[in-house]
This record gives sequence, structure tokens and C-alpha cells, in this order.
Amino acid sequence: MAKRVAIGQAGGPTAVINASLVGFVETLQQEVELFGVYNGYQGLYENDIEKLDAELLGWIKSHRYVNGACLGSGRYEFTTERIQKSLLHLKKHCIDTLVFIGGNGTMAALHKLAEEARHIHYDLQVIGIPKTVDNDLSETDHAPGFGSAARYVATAVRDISRDLCAMQNFEQVRILETMGRNSGWLAAASGLLRNGKDDGPHIVYVPERIIEPEHFLANVREAVRSFGYATIVVAEGCKINSFSDQVEKANVQGRTILGGISGVLEKMVKTELGVMARAEILGMNQRSSSAVISKQDQVEAFEVGREAARLVLHGETGRMVTIQRSANIDYTFSMNSCPLQVVAKGGERFLPDALIDDPEAYYKWLRPLAGEDLQPYPTVRKRRILYEKQ
Amino acid sequence: MAKRVAIGQAGGPTAVINASLVGFVETLQQEVELFGVYNGYQGLYENDIEKLDAELLGWIKSHRYVNGACLGSGRYEFTTERIQKSLLHLKKHCIDTLVFIGGNGTMAALHKLAEEARHIHYDLQVIGIPKTVDNDLSETDHAPGFGSAARYVATAVRDISRDLCAMQNFEQVRILETMGRNSGWLAAASGLLRNGKDDGPHIVYVPERIIEPEHFLANVREAVRSFGYATIVVAEGCKINSFSDQVEKANVQGRTILGGISGVLEKMVKTELGVMARAEILGMNQRSSSAVISKQDQVEAFEVGREAARLVLHGETGRMVTIQRSANIDYTFSMNSCPLQVVAKGGERFLPDALIDDPEAYYKWLRPLAGEDLQPYPTVRKRRILYEKQ
Repeated sequence: MAKRVAIGQAGGPTAVINASLVGFVETLQQEVELFGVYNGYQGLYENDIEKLDAELLGWIKSHRYVNGACLGSGRYEFTTERIQKSLLHLKKHCIDTLVFIGGNGTMAALHKLAEEARHIHYDLQVIGIPKTVDNDLSETDHAPGFGSAARYVATAVRDISRDLCAMQNFEQVRILETMGRNSGWLAAASGLLRNGKDDGPHIVYVPERIIEPEHFLANVREAVRSFGYATIVVAEGCKINSFSDQVEKANVQGRTILGGISGVLEKMVKTELGVMARAEILGMNQRSSSAVISKQDQVEAFEVGREAARLVLHGETGRMVTIQRSANIDYTFSMNSCPLQVVAKGGERFLPDALIDDPEAYYKWLRPLAGEDLQPYPTVRKRRILYEKQ
Repeated sequence: MAKRVAIGQAGGPTAVINASLVGFVETLQQEVELFGVYNGYQGLYENDIEKLDAELLGWIKSHRYVNGACLGSGRYEFTTERIQKSLLHLKKHCIDTLVFIGGNGTMAALHKLAEEARHIHYDLQVIGIPKTVDNDLSETDHAPGFGSAARYVATAVRDISRDLCAMQNFEQVRILETMGRNSGWLAAASGLLRNGKDDGPHIVYVPERIIEPEHFLANVREAVRSFGYATIVVAEGCKINSFSDQVEKANVQGRTILGGISGVLEKMVKTELGVMARAEILGMNQRSSSAVISKQDQVEAFEVGREAARLVLHGETGRMVTIQRSANIDYTFSMNSCPLQVVAKGGERFLPDALIDDPEAYYKWLRPLAGEDLQPYPTVRKRRILYEKQ
């Protein structure tokens, strides 16, 4: 009898998470019986599990180039009790294999579920497919979703900075807030397309470093004096000084939504420097934009789905697919896997000091993921500084 | 002796305003002596006018596909006194022709300048090139910049809605705020790619209509009940009831920056309906995004620049280039011109009632401008409503 394999998506969607799902189901649909788990771990707990017939498989496959998570994703506290009940549902469906696409939280939960299954002698095969826009998953060079988000941040910041450059008599400072939670991979990507020091972003803050208000204001003042305008990038997870907390937008079901630090900095600039500043949160488009997908990211997302399918067929269990890179130049990638336990223990991966201190080294690492095709804009021509005249 | 022609850019930049500049200078550079006016009308008043040599022309032409205004733009109150001083500068440079690329404010100012020139018997030829993302310029079917901005709004809202659709157990409502000032062309564009009633945006508010809080809350409640989530679009210029003012983000040099109504509605939804809502301002990317340019818009922006060059050579004056369309299907456009005075008198153009009440008719009108190539996403598959269970 064919294996019975259930697949779900969890956590924040990305521009390419559906590509991983499609890669997975396309590779397996002739070999096993496939089941969809709807709305992430909540669907597992609530037995929202459905056999994927030809019609459903066709509908899923039509999402290869579509952002969002077509099975439904979500955030859900996966307590031991909920895991135990979920295992009963899976058992009733005679599921042999459970595969989830997700980030740190998803992998930790998947590991816990595998442990609980072993505990009750349920021979459940468990495989994880990596996904994150924050790039904070350990044990993999990077994860699908990040390349497209980084491309979004790099182009959006470059474009908004060029817009600001033209509007210097009206506003001098824009503070652009990126996703990334506690890690600075996305925020640091904002400088990828900067062409010369007159071009923005002029200053970038990552959560791995504390923002010192005095330095911040001095940096902004200096940029406005030198260039007539200042494009500042700040990660949502930055702290303004070592005593302060991260700025929270909301708290939903015990999970903090970060957001709003750009507004705090906007006020500081307006009050202390007396120049017009505008905070802007780059928002959900960072993980959703269908127009700014990195082709490499799209390909890799599909391939990690296929690789997970191969692990299923080879009988591997308790593992997450990982990506290795050959080199930064003439980039190629290969895939491997690592124990879910190691990923769970690894926790969040931060942007290393060496890359924070050497942005060019970071851009070399990033370029193949965000898109080698990205062309730099012409240089910004130095103009008369209008700000000093006011 | 060759004509001496000065060109400037004014108002908020767009993704394609530089294409108009390039179309203009490419067409004229062999025929006339070209001068650049930096930073819009402020540069005119402060004599920031420079002859465009081969190097500068080359640099300008490298901006054909680059967003922002490479000559510098800006907002500037162009008082009669400032206009008079500007005319003295132009006279000193022996400028025969002044051309500005801009929107309503720019055209009104250009008309005033032409009047003042006539008053002092300065035989100055004056031509306007239309540009606006708000599409509120009268006398032209539409203006360059709008098609790309509409494409941005349509794709961003569609993408963010698909993301929300997958996150229903975590958040149920997103309120997305668009540009457009007092007119609803951009906000209404958000529905262009909606595929069936389960898909977002579920509700769209344009400034031409007042939002009634009771209706708003009832609509949101109904959408969340029916679909499990609600994607709401609101134009920055909407008023919440007939007594209230528009929501202002800031006031700079006497000019109001609208912004923040989505935040007001977010609070209302959270407080009155008790569901998780997130406001998001689509922001500067609407007018800046290099990744979401409509090819048709790009072509038309270039062509209105070329048409302005022809008007210069034909000795026309006091006119703005306009665009006419043949038909919505098998769309082609032609160009004409109209008196600046008529544009100035026409003021802001609003979204007509007929198009507000018949979105499909509006989408037919819009599709050739935003991009015939935009493909609809697969339909949203009805899932169990999670919200009711909470």
C-alpha cells in the first residue's frame, strides 16, 4: 500500500512558500497518497486534514508562482496537549509521514511532535522544509523566502531613496523600517544597490547592535549636511538604547508583533534636529510581493520541496532540508539535511559581526540570492544642498 | 541662433517622470540649446539653471528607466514675487522656452508664470508635460505615472490580501491605505486583480464618498464572517464622517501631507469588533517602485515628452500635452494639447460616480494603463472560518 503523507504550511507566508509545496506534491503525487493540513498546526489539532484528490492537486499546482500559503498557514501555540491530540488525528488518518514548511518555530514544534510520536510508539516519519524571510534559521546557508524579501528591501529602499533625493526642499529624512525580528539580514540587504556615498541608504541599523540616540542624531545631521537628505533603514527589532525594550505594535495570542521603531526615530529627528522626517514601515509586501521575486529564490524554494519528497521516499526522518552554497561567485547550491533537533536547539541565527562590519562582504554573499540581474542605477549627481538655506 | 529651452520637474516624482524628461531632451538635443532647472520652481527662483552639455545629457538619458526626478523636484510655493524674480533669471539666460513636467499645482503655476511673462512683454514660450500618480489632472484621459501607481496598488493589495487569507487564525483584518489625495482613482484600482468574492479587497473606500462608521463596521463584520478575513482599502483622503476633516500626517510649508486614516479605522475595528486588525500605509513605493512599472505607462511617459518637444518646435505656447484613448479594448492612444489655463481652472479631477458604482467598467478603463499582461491568481478556495471558533 502506498505511503500516506500529510503536508502543511506554517508561520508567515512568503512570496515562494507555495513553490516549495508544489515541488513537494509534484514529486510525490504518483508515489504516495497525499493529504493537506489546513491552517498550519491549528488544522492538525482540529483535524482539518483532507486527502488531496486530482482536483485539489491541480489547484495547489496552480500556485507555483503565487505568494501566500494556499493551504492556509497561521500562528498557533502547539502545546504538548495539542500535539498529543494532533497525533491521534494523524493516526486515525493512518498517516505515515508528516511534512511541514516553516521557520524556527515550525521546526521546533515539528521536533517536539516527533518526540511525542516516538513516546507513544507511533512510527511517524517527520520532515521539515525551511522557509523564512528573516533568514534566521540555523544549519542552512539561507532559506527560501529570504532572497525575494531581500530583493524587495534592496529595491524598495533604493527607489524610495531616489524619490527622497528629488524632494529635498520638502522633506529631508526618511526612516524605513524592515522586517527581520531579532536578526539584521533583511535590514542589511537594503544597501545592496547603493551606488556611491551620495546614494541611499545612508545609515542602516540592525538589531544585533543597539542604537545610541546621540550617535543616531549625529549621523542623521551629518548625512543631511553632506547630501541634503538622509535615507535611514532600521530593523523592526532594534532597540534605541540598552535599557529599552523592542518597540511592539501589538501582542496577539502571546506573540509580539514588532513594529513602530521608525516612528519613534521620526519624532526624535523632528524634535531634536527640526527637519522634516517621515517614517515608513515597508510592511507585508516584503514577504508577499509577487512583483519582486528573486528567480534564484523561486528555484530553490521549488527544489527544497523536491528534496523533502526524496527524503520521504528514502525513509529519512526527524530532519530538515538544508541548502549549501558552492561559492559567492559562479554561485551554485546543493541540498542536504540536518536533524530537526539541531535546528530547534540552534534557535535564531543572527547576522555575524564580520558581515555587519563589512557590508561589501555581505553583499557578495547576498547578490546570488537576491538576483544577479539587479542593475545599479546611475550615480546621484551632487546638487546644491537646499537644507542649509532654510 | 538655436532656441534656448529650459526644462524642469516639479511635485512628487513618479516611476516614469524621468522617461518624459528623456523623451523631451532626446527629441530636442540636436535642434535647440537645452538648460536644466534643478529642484523644480525653487531652482527657477534661485537661478539654479544650468546648460545641459553632452555629459549632463548623457547622465539624464541614463535615467530613462529610473524612478525619481533626476533634475530634482520638490514642492515650492510659487508666489507672484517669486515668479517675477524667476522671469528675470530666465531672461538673463536668454531662455526662449520653459517646459515643466508636473501635476495640477505645477500647471497652475506655469500658467501664472506665462501670464506674468506676457505682462512684462517677455516673449516666453511655455509648455507643460502632464505627470501625476493621483490621476487628478483634468483635460487628459489620464496622465503618466498613474498607470504604474495603479499597477502597484492592484498587485500589492492582491498580494497582501493573499498573505492575510493564509493568516486568518492570527489576524483577520488588514486596512491598506493608498495615495490619491482627494480623488479615488488609485484606491479603486486596488480591485483590478480580485478574483471572485472570496478574494480581496473586500471593501474599498474612495474620498469621493464619506465613510459612515456604522456601515464600515457592519461591512467588516460581514466580510470576516463570510470569508474569515477582510482586506479593506481606504484612500488617504477619505473622511470618516461628514463632520470630520481628512486625517493629516503632517503639515510642511503650509502643505498638508495626508495619512493615517487606516490607523483610525484599525483602532475602530479592534475596539468595536474585537478582532485583530493591522493598518498599513502602502507608502512611497506607490509612486517609486521600479519593479512595478506598467510598460504602457513607461511608453506614454516617454511619448508625452516627445510631443512636448514637437510643440516647442511648432511654436505652440501656454499648452499642456494631453492623452486621448481610442477605446478600452485594443487600446491605442494619441496625443493632443490644451490650454494651461483650462487645466488650471479645471482643478482636481475626481473619480466619476458612474465608475465608483460600476467597478467592472472602471477596470475595463484601467486595464490597458496598468498592464494587460497582469494575470489573475487562482481562485481562493473556501476554507473553514476560523474566526467564529475564537
